[in-house]
Amino acid sequence: MKAKIHVTLKQGILDPQGKAIEHALDSLGFKNAANVRVGKYMEVDVQETDKAKADAQVKQMCEKLLANTIIEEYRYELV
Amino acid sequence: MKAKIHVTLKQGILDPQGKAIEHALDSLGFKNAANVRVGKYMEVDVQETDKAKADAQVKQMCEKLLANTIIEEYRYELV
Repeated sequence: MKAKIHVTLKQGILDPQGKAIEHALDSLGFKNAANVRVGKYMEVDVQETDKAKADAQVKQMCEKLLANTIIEEYRYELV
Repeated sequence: MKAKIHVTLKQGILDPQGKAIEHALDSLGFKNAANVRVGKYMEVDVQETDKAKADAQVKQMCEKLLANTIIEEYRYELV
């Protein structure tokens, strides 16, 4: 199964990368772009046919490595 | 409108960050994780009510700044 994982900063956590992009967009003339937030998107092939097992594994991967759960939140879907 | 943008490496482009994550997952005991690919996920508020105009603007943002179209591809949705 393939896991599609999104890791994003929690609401309220400052996003300097997003701010930098916002300023760059402004400089390029995109005056109506605001609130840019940047996150990570990962795809992982999980060699597991049982959906419940794959789900549990991906959750563990996110908790242990892929997301810093103090400042980030994650969501994923299995396809 | 809010644009949800995914920027990912094109098929065939080496992904060292993905490889590093793959090895880290392996070290942590996730032996059945493979083909890790890492991309960016961005959310941008576009202050534009006309969907066609917003769409054209986000496309321009991706082409000019958010994606390196030589090695990356992008997709987005407007909500």
